[in-house]
Amino acid sequence: MDKVAITPPSGTRDFFSGDVKFRENAISIIKKRFELFGFQPLETPAFERLDVLAGKYGEEEKLIFKILKRGDQASSGEADLALRYDFTIPLARYVANLGLQTGDCFKRYQIGPVWRADRPAKGRFREFYQCDVDIVGSSSRLADVEVILAVSSALQFLGLEGFTIHLNSRKILRGLMEIYKVPREAETDAIMALDKLSKIGPDGVIKELIERGIPSEVTKLIEEDFMSDAPIHRLKDRLLVSDIGKNGISEVEEIEALVSSRLNNAKIIFDPYIARGLDYYTGFVFEVFYENDSTKLPLSIASGGRYDNLVGMFLSRSIPACGGSVGFERVLLLLDQQDKKIEAFPNVMVAVWDNTFYNDAITIASLLRANGISTELSLREGKIGNQIRQADKRKIPICVLRGPDEKEKHTIAIKNLITGKQCIVDDKQVVDAVKKELLGII
Amino acid sequence: MDKVAITPPSGTRDFFSGDVKFRENAISIIKKRFELFGFQPLETPAFERLDVLAGKYGEEEKLIFKILKRGDQASSGEADLALRYDFTIPLARYVANLGLQTGDCFKRYQIGPVWRADRPAKGRFREFYQCDVDIVGSSSRLADVEVILAVSSALQFLGLEGFTIHLNSRKILRGLMEIYKVPREAETDAIMALDKLSKIGPDGVIKELIERGIPSEVTKLIEEDFMSDAPIHRLKDRLLVSDIGKNGISEVEEIEALVSSRLNNAKIIFDPYIARGLDYYTGFVFEVFYENDSTKLPLSIASGGRYDNLVGMFLSRSIPACGGSVGFERVLLLLDQQDKKIEAFPNVMVAVWDNTFYNDAITIASLLRANGISTELSLREGKIGNQIRQADKRKIPICVLRGPDEKEKHTIAIKNLITGKQCIVDDKQVVDAVKKELLGII
Repeated sequence: MDKVAITPPSGTRDFFSGDVKFRENAISIIKKRFELFGFQPLETPAFERLDVLAGKYGEEEKLIFKILKRGDQASSGEADLALRYDFTIPLARYVANLGLQTGDCFKRYQIGPVWRADRPAKGRFREFYQCDVDIVGSSSRLADVEVILAVSSALQFLGLEGFTIHLNSRKILRGLMEIYKVPREAETDAIMALDKLSKIGPDGVIKELIERGIPSEVTKLIEEDFMSDAPIHRLKDRLLVSDIGKNGISEVEEIEALVSSRLNNAKIIFDPYIARGLDYYTGFVFEVFYENDSTKLPLSIASGGRYDNLVGMFLSRSIPACGGSVGFERVLLLLDQQDKKIEAFPNVMVAVWDNTFYNDAITIASLLRANGISTELSLREGKIGNQIRQADKRKIPICVLRGPDEKEKHTIAIKNLITGKQCIVDDKQVVDAVKKELLGII
Repeated sequence: MDKVAITPPSGTRDFFSGDVKFRENAISIIKKRFELFGFQPLETPAFERLDVLAGKYGEEEKLIFKILKRGDQASSGEADLALRYDFTIPLARYVANLGLQTGDCFKRYQIGPVWRADRPAKGRFREFYQCDVDIVGSSSRLADVEVILAVSSALQFLGLEGFTIHLNSRKILRGLMEIYKVPREAETDAIMALDKLSKIGPDGVIKELIERGIPSEVTKLIEEDFMSDAPIHRLKDRLLVSDIGKNGISEVEEIEALVSSRLNNAKIIFDPYIARGLDYYTGFVFEVFYENDSTKLPLSIASGGRYDNLVGMFLSRSIPACGGSVGFERVLLLLDQQDKKIEAFPNVMVAVWDNTFYNDAITIASLLRANGISTELSLREGKIGNQIRQADKRKIPICVLRGPDEKEKHTIAIKNLITGKQCIVDDKQVVDAVKKELLGII
């Protein structure tokens, strides 16, 4: 056979044992929080029909993994399916298929992998988990608040404290565009540049605005606002002359008032420049930043907002919706890596004297397993000393053995590989004795 | 926008709420059993490099979902990646990447979706879960036994009792080919036809053997064996003249002896015709059949065997291995569908008087959630009666409300939608009062 690459494909990873447990544990914490907020789990297929995804992601569309037609059409080189790129478009498809009635409200969470053919980089993968909550069918301010509180609650129970929620409304940004007199066709460019303020700083934003061709009379106004002593007050004053801007301000103030007292060690602030990358947001948007000693720069760990014109697309009507997403892979990087030590090792290895002792070994293993003790049989036969060294190397803490001596006396030998101590117990006491040793270890 | 199909792609499914919980519950039972046997979890990516999968599945290769190249090469119509087709080839790749040393033993389980572009049919899907255990690096008979016991244990804890494990060895089948004098090039055809005995009966098998061009002097011998009063004895006698056949018989007898007393209500029988579809098995093979009042025909619910020449393929050396797989989707169909009623509904809906009561509603919801009670806010404002009807329709059992009266008196109204009873409690008693109502319901 030709030599093939045996690493996981670029941008993907294999997870084993403790890494799997570490991820599963984080997922179960997030699920539990989302369910406490009344979100119910949805699982959609890994792939969708290509036409369901096509035309939804703008420039990012080239990052979709497309699946070739099969059978007679395999040779056409055409695709008819594509791996899901996020959970939002599948949600829109699901809701359409469900036949959601006007006025009905649908709350779901979805946690699982999505796939994007991005250039892999540190902390950026082609297969990565998303954790989304969304509320479809409600334009209530309470829905906005619930999404922010559910996401915050998940972050807090994962052990991330002291994050800051940056809150804004797309209406404020549209108000600013009016006030700054940004030409209509340059609005998206200007908003995307403003969105980078926390990452590239005021100078960086001004530079990018100029590069994107924003007129200098506009960038001058923006620069003045950046440099103001009280930029938030100044902007709020400015926005008084814009209807949509005023609307955005009251949206943000209502949400802030309802959320701020419920965040424990976290806080929520108004950030008039946060936009979120995606084009489809129509109302409030938020991005959660985390900064601690080890992270230096504030890292974005969650985000979301209201998008009233997206979910109804397959029903050709407008359905209000809002949602939030925990940046799962990044959050995992921030969590205490010590937790990874909770490996999924078996607790006990049963050493095997020789093939005439198979039945004895299975009997002991079955007994321990029936009592909830994870147990494996030594499959490396030969000298008992080697079997014990193997168990030790694999970090299995307890080794038990019934050899010819023990068999004659109806006993079992138990060796604690952590303490090095060994004892001999009656057959019938093996479960209690092993449990006792394990208690001392865990 | 053009009309697009809003159902899940052919052969795939959306799962919501109770269906997700039902599947997750079954998975957690299987995981727990596999871990008790000392298997550790592995998660490999959804896709592999195409050359890792290519050439491994014979005729079934056309059922692999292939992923188009991206970027500059997108227009080539060529594929470079493919969705995993099973967990065995990814295991071989993982073990090679790990650099497994000769003599080292590796036990893992993997549970998750695989994808096959099969023609969808009742109970057959294009995206379906597999639950595999495998032991790599050991040729011990104990490894064979552990695989069978781990799979049986998972089935039993899922609630399936009274299944029958059909056990055979590929060595016996090869011995039979010697004795029947089947031409070498027809061996695979003959074995695949014999494998169908339990599905299509003796007449069906003979017919298929003839169709596959097996010489009539061979089919006559086979037919005689089928019709014998004691076919197992007759075959064992016949196999005495074949070295490999004798070897297979002792393999089967050893496994049967070690497994049979440990199956509770299940049993293990020697079935000299079981082959398993895949070409790569080299030693014992097994298939688990389940039959009850509702299933009429015996259904295959699990299977596995020893395949010593597969896992080492990427290392260009032979690595012994054996494994088993629970037929997850089929098992779910057999499980008591009553369990599906364990839906993931929230326990409580907080009704909302009007938008001046948002803060009160969130306060009550936060309190209940902090006490582990899954709670949602009513997002459908307007008449309280309508909100309560909405909760009832969504099967939420408890509704709580603080309106102007309750606010003045520092109380909260609690309505049990199952009994129809309502009570008013002090603010501070709401958690206890709701818990009490829930206890009466669950």
